[in-house]
Amino acid sequence: MIAQLEAMQGAKAVDTLQASAVAFFQFYSTNHAYFDLLVTKRAELVRESGVDIVQDFEEAGRGAVGPIAKAYSAGIESGDFRRRDPEKMAFVLRAVAIGMAVGFREGNLKFPDDVALLTDLVLNGIIQS
Amino acid sequence: MIAQLEAMQGAKAVDTLQASAVAFFQFYSTNHAYFDLLVTKRAELVRESGVDIVQDFEEAGRGAVGPIAKAYSAGIESGDFRRRDPEKMAFVLRAVAIGMAVGFREGNLKFPDDVALLTDLVLNGIIQS
Repeated sequence: MIAQLEAMQGAKAVDTLQASAVAFFQFYSTNHAYFDLLVTKRAELVRESGVDIVQDFEEAGRGAVGPIAKAYSAGIESGDFRRRDPEKMAFVLRAVAIGMAVGFREGNLKFPDDVALLTDLVLNGIIQS
Repeated sequence: MIAQLEAMQGAKAVDTLQASAVAFFQFYSTNHAYFDLLVTKRAELVRESGVDIVQDFEEAGRGAVGPIAKAYSAGIESGDFRRRDPEKMAFVLRAVAIGMAVGFREGNLKFPDDVALLTDLVLNGIIQS
């Protein structure tokens, strides 16, 4: 997934963000047990693991956030995105993607049909301008 | 939480949505074990429960989404919000709130400091207009 993102260096920031979200939704739908453990058992996993594992774990987390922050920065520089802290925004966008993935799994939201609704929300917000 | 929402009938739609999100973040931070079960063990919970419990369960889910959909509808009618399916939007906003609550718990996002960043994202999106 990260390799895919890095290959998108030349792409528009919006396309990079959407592609990363879709890649995550697809990955999550077949691998959600891993994420479930991270959410519900994080403290236990960290406590019961060696220092190396915890470092790998933290790096994997940063690995997902880094490319999103980079895409956000690129979007600010091109004048497309609002000027916000790119790393904070990466964590917020990651949070949005995690919640949406859970919604897809519950079945209240449909993948890929409802991705467009989420993209529109993230890009334009709900306020009628 | 739902009673709080219903008491806000006269409030602006934006205020209602933000208040419901904040109420949820506070509730989630002290009661996340319940949500964790819903996410990771939903199929088992439904399978091992009687018909009445499953109905209560579905109603509780709708109970949270109904007031959000109503607030979204009110925002469309007042001309504040973009015209989208209010129920779909309620599920998307609920998904966003769930993801954000997980982010607060992981510690990558801070409650209540980062609520403003999320509110801005949901209201205005990331596109520089």
